[in-house]
Amino acid sequence: MFAGLTNRGERVRVLGVDPGLTRCGVGVVDGAPGAPLSLVAVGVIRTPAAAELPERLLGIAEGIEGWLAEHRPDAVAVERVFAQANLRTVMGTAQASGIAITAAARLRLPVALHTPSEVKAAITGSGRADKAQVTAMVTRILRLSAAPKPADAADALALAICHVWRGGAMARIARAAAAQTAARTPARRPE
Amino acid sequence: MFAGLTNRGERVRVLGVDPGLTRCGVGVVDGAPGAPLSLVAVGVIRTPAAAELPERLLGIAEGIEGWLAEHRPDAVAVERVFAQANLRTVMGTAQASGIAITAAARLRLPVALHTPSEVKAAITGSGRADKAQVTAMVTRILRLSAAPKPADAADALALAICHVWRGGAMARIARAAAAQTAARTPARRPE
Repeated sequence: MFAGLTNRGERVRVLGVDPGLTRCGVGVVDGAPGAPLSLVAVGVIRTPAAAELPERLLGIAEGIEGWLAEHRPDAVAVERVFAQANLRTVMGTAQASGIAITAAARLRLPVALHTPSEVKAAITGSGRADKAQVTAMVTRILRLSAAPKPADAADALALAICHVWRGGAMARIARAAAAQTAARTPARRPE
Repeated sequence: MFAGLTNRGERVRVLGVDPGLTRCGVGVVDGAPGAPLSLVAVGVIRTPAAAELPERLLGIAEGIEGWLAEHRPDAVAVERVFAQANLRTVMGTAQASGIAITAAARLRLPVALHTPSEVKAAITGSGRADKAQVTAMVTRILRLSAAPKPADAADALALAICHVWRGGAMARIARAAAAQTAARTPARRPE
């Protein structure tokens, strides 16, 4: 069912995760740099604010594991959390991000962390774009008939899109560097 | 092999976790409030600072899961992490704590979070005790011939000891409250 997605050129399926304890945004995108991207699935893993922390963290873990099992992404992109962020929620956000990263690592999937400004810059051209602008661009890039809601869901898709595009750019740079090195390296002596 | 520990009165086995990314302290204690405690095992889960974050978090997860499987505690006590702590390491510490809490929750074990000052107060009588004082008291309480090293290992044992003692105190308060309520409640009418 997923055949051809991972091995046809650079086409990849990416799960983006916008970590959070109350709402953890998740979005899956299929795509390749320079080709139209497509939405696979988008949603939010919610845990009740009234529940105890262990139950909430387990809910996030099982939710992420469910998305990984159902959509089998080739890579996972998680928003990088900073200690300077909202003090009231930063610990839960950090814990949720650690759980998402661990779930991906358990499946030996590559995990990338992108900062909010890297994502905004990739999607809108400005690292200071507001949420409405990011959502508008996600809607346009994925050719959706309506904006994904809530904002956490749109942010998860933005992360996935950013990852496809940055991954492509990084792969091109790596190839160019490898080609230059090859050109500079003298041919191997015949033995 | 562990029979009798969980069901004989209030005797419990507690795994204490001092979360950290470079060194995650783990210590297992058997005990009951008011009775001598005993050391079951103590150690440190280490991950290489040079490794990528996903690999490090997975190392913490697998390490904690290994300790849970080997020692089968009745409860897990994890140090509560605050956002105000050391900015350089707080995100890794928060992520490691989330992973430890989730590993315990997956096994449906009760998880308690204790603050560093709660632990220090329980062990030394002062919430402002220094590390040397905590280590000295842990060594004395568990009747060890040498101080557990490194400090993270001693802190994990302090957490486990604190949990046994606080758990006992909380259980006594709950029983006293229940007894009072029962005394106030009129006897059930015969039917």
